[in-house]
Amino acid sequence: MSNKGITPRSEEYSQWFLDIIDRAELAENSPVRGSMVIKPYGYAIWENIQKELDRRIKEKGAKNAYFPLFIPKSFLSKEADHVKGFAKECAIVTHYRLRETADGKGVEVDPEAKLEEELIVRPTSETIMYDTFSRWIKSWRDLPLKINQWANIVRWEKRTRPFLRTAEFLWQEGHTVHETHEESLKEVMEALNMYKDFASEVLALETLIGKKSNSEKFAGALDTYGVEAMMQDGKSLQFGTSHDLGQNFAKVFNIQFTDREGKLKYPWQTSWGVSTRMMGALVMSHSDDKGLIVPPKIAPIKVVIVPIYKDDNKEKVLKYSRGIYNQLIKDVDNVEFDDREFLSPGYKFNEWEKKGVPVRIEIGPKDMEAGQVVIVRRDTSEKSNIYVSEVNENVQKLLEDIQENLLSRSKDLLISNTYSVSDYKEFKDVISSKKGFVHAHWCGDPECEEKIKEETKATTRCQTEEGKKNTSKCIYCEKPGEEWVFGISY
Amino acid sequence: MSNKGITPRSEEYSQWFLDIIDRAELAENSPVRGSMVIKPYGYAIWENIQKELDRRIKEKGAKNAYFPLFIPKSFLSKEADHVKGFAKECAIVTHYRLRETADGKGVEVDPEAKLEEELIVRPTSETIMYDTFSRWIKSWRDLPLKINQWANIVRWEKRTRPFLRTAEFLWQEGHTVHETHEESLKEVMEALNMYKDFASEVLALETLIGKKSNSEKFAGALDTYGVEAMMQDGKSLQFGTSHDLGQNFAKVFNIQFTDREGKLKYPWQTSWGVSTRMMGALVMSHSDDKGLIVPPKIAPIKVVIVPIYKDDNKEKVLKYSRGIYNQLIKDVDNVEFDDREFLSPGYKFNEWEKKGVPVRIEIGPKDMEAGQVVIVRRDTSEKSNIYVSEVNENVQKLLEDIQENLLSRSKDLLISNTYSVSDYKEFKDVISSKKGFVHAHWCGDPECEEKIKEETKATTRCQTEEGKKNTSKCIYCEKPGEEWVFGISY
Repeated sequence: MSNKGITPRSEEYSQWFLDIIDRAELAENSPVRGSMVIKPYGYAIWENIQKELDRRIKEKGAKNAYFPLFIPKSFLSKEADHVKGFAKECAIVTHYRLRETADGKGVEVDPEAKLEEELIVRPTSETIMYDTFSRWIKSWRDLPLKINQWANIVRWEKRTRPFLRTAEFLWQEGHTVHETHEESLKEVMEALNMYKDFASEVLALETLIGKKSNSEKFAGALDTYGVEAMMQDGKSLQFGTSHDLGQNFAKVFNIQFTDREGKLKYPWQTSWGVSTRMMGALVMSHSDDKGLIVPPKIAPIKVVIVPIYKDDNKEKVLKYSRGIYNQLIKDVDNVEFDDREFLSPGYKFNEWEKKGVPVRIEIGPKDMEAGQVVIVRRDTSEKSNIYVSEVNENVQKLLEDIQENLLSRSKDLLISNTYSVSDYKEFKDVISSKKGFVHAHWCGDPECEEKIKEETKATTRCQTEEGKKNTSKCIYCEKPGEEWVFGISY
Repeated sequence: MSNKGITPRSEEYSQWFLDIIDRAELAENSPVRGSMVIKPYGYAIWENIQKELDRRIKEKGAKNAYFPLFIPKSFLSKEADHVKGFAKECAIVTHYRLRETADGKGVEVDPEAKLEEELIVRPTSETIMYDTFSRWIKSWRDLPLKINQWANIVRWEKRTRPFLRTAEFLWQEGHTVHETHEESLKEVMEALNMYKDFASEVLALETLIGKKSNSEKFAGALDTYGVEAMMQDGKSLQFGTSHDLGQNFAKVFNIQFTDREGKLKYPWQTSWGVSTRMMGALVMSHSDDKGLIVPPKIAPIKVVIVPIYKDDNKEKVLKYSRGIYNQLIKDVDNVEFDDREFLSPGYKFNEWEKKGVPVRIEIGPKDMEAGQVVIVRRDTSEKSNIYVSEVNENVQKLLEDIQENLLSRSKDLLISNTYSVSDYKEFKDVISSKKGFVHAHWCGDPECEEKIKEETKATTRCQTEEGKKNTSKCIYCEKPGEEWVFGISY
């Protein structure tokens, strides 16, 4: 564990975020620009996220599969908007062999091993998958087709930050094909709601869902819908997206099916995904100045037991503590017994606080004599003395309470930092002083959107269902507009 | 499902293998040379393999983590043998941006976006991991360090075959660091035995374990140990490997620790892995001319129920069959109820046979009247009429029997195709007529090994513990030698 402290949020929010990732041992920078190493503790949280999300994706009827990492350059170019969006930030494989340098001291690219067609490391898999789908789909009986892939993705981002924006990241991408637009739109919304429910029920994150503006949509989609979360500094973080691809890709990859009337038609497609970016949202939402706080439902360690002893009572305290451990694991999983030597209880408390373990049980000689233990909850730091016979029930209840409390904090944050404004002056005041989600009217013209961004750094985050119905004057040009949610995004 | 037949093994073994992969819908070729698409049914088997192996890896004390896909060229070059082994077959990223072509019709590599140092798509992760380990390890208290990674790997193989040898494949790689060579050697053997047990207990595959010869060992290792399986044509397939890396990598990546006496030392390392190649072993070991046979323990569908009806009894048969389905799922997981319309029972039987579902239950009107069902086991095609009340017990027993029978067949194959020879003439006779595992003596000189390979195609597969003690004349040069297992490898 790092002994270094954590920069307080109030002092420098972005350094606080980096400190949490470091001190909680979630990830670290690697020697490869923009790529990170996800450390065991961080990866264990990711595995718990994956497991629960994978279950929900399968419940929706999607099946997992695996497609190539490399995409032929010509595939990426087929959909005009798609290539514009992804050509600028991709890793390109041009050669397939190294050779010894003339001085024999190193290796260099062998110019004779040049690929005829360059390969792009997947920035997303629409093109490589849909080429294959065109061979899988013949008739309406093959539809809907629902495929999901867990994979690594590379986008050559200029500025990177661990979890939030990295050159390589891990994600899940769902790709579905349908007979009608009505059906594919239903899928888009189902995926979106799956992410929203997952955020709320598992990650204890309140989010907002809605349609993205044209400038913010996925390159190649008709429409993109997003799940937006709010961080503690009031900024918004795009947590996941779900795309209505229309027939754009079907047409360029020639996916066709014979419909129920025997006619040849292009199907309607969707894609949707969330990534290790969720880990960034998790850190920024639930942590405090003492470190990370992990929601119990995805905690690799839910409870840690720290025995406190001196040489003369060591054996007794350890025996008593181990008894409680054995009792607790009958009802609670992921309990850790921290009997490491050479480390003081204080050091251990500090370490587990930084790592955000939801519940800590401290057991010293006095607790032992009283037939009790001390239970500390990570979210509120509240301490209670609990009798041994009540430990299991108390811990189970506490884990539920913590999960609920984190969600309720997240809800409060979102609600208390959401504003409605009616003119541009008010908009600028709120955005500059409070950030948050600002409901305001916009005419839909990308020029107004761009100006607002230039002048205030705020972008359209999404338009909710209700927003669409709520019309009024555009805050920028005063032409008729619909209500959108603006914010400063990560 | 493909309606095409399957080439019999006796006619053309290698085409039979490709046919099984196609007809069972495990995988297919992709437009990217040497990369395959793992289809949902194939991937579901892989997920079951992963799940069970991951459990065993964690039980051994390793923790999962994730390291970058890209390796800086200079890292790969640090260990002299390592770079020789992997430089010849790697994918090299040289640029990070595409631009529009002058005619505006396509995209091309932007020459201005050239990387200062090329990045290699990982052919294995020793170098990128150990650079990081050098920062994680300070003292003997940080040891042993046991990290495992599930990842995609790229090796630019010239000749590829689905699952057996593909440019991109999926694998697990374990990497451990220890205080002493004794301890790291113990780890090497533990990993090796974990793979052997997994093969036997889960995949129903009998294997042989032992040390590889110098020419067959991992580039950069002191010694490599392998798990060798025998396919139905008598050829051997390297199923997994475990490497004693000694201090080779520790020295070049400067991993040092303060030992218990306060001295600075280089630690001892191991790495070990198995890949989607296992899927190839599975197909080649258990399938027959009718299709794949999946061992029950990893079967995505363990039992399929196929109702047989005509228009006038459809409702009754479906209701009866669904009742049996509901009864069966109380005790057995992964049961599929195949009530698809438009497909004949015969077509369905054929499809599930090709896909290797261990148990099929057929239910027609006559079975319904008799209060029975017909149960067919995939491995022997044996049919039984079973009363409804006995279905659950019978199916559970049958799944165990099939798992055992597959392993016992695999054992029989390995035993009956293992030979001992004492001279080169006999060796050549056996290898050319029977393939199999041939125990023979070899002096250890790479020149003899190379000559034997040139003249017979046979390579040393491994040396078992007993082989080392069993000395006699080298079959090629007649100098003193130890016993090795030879075979024709995939």
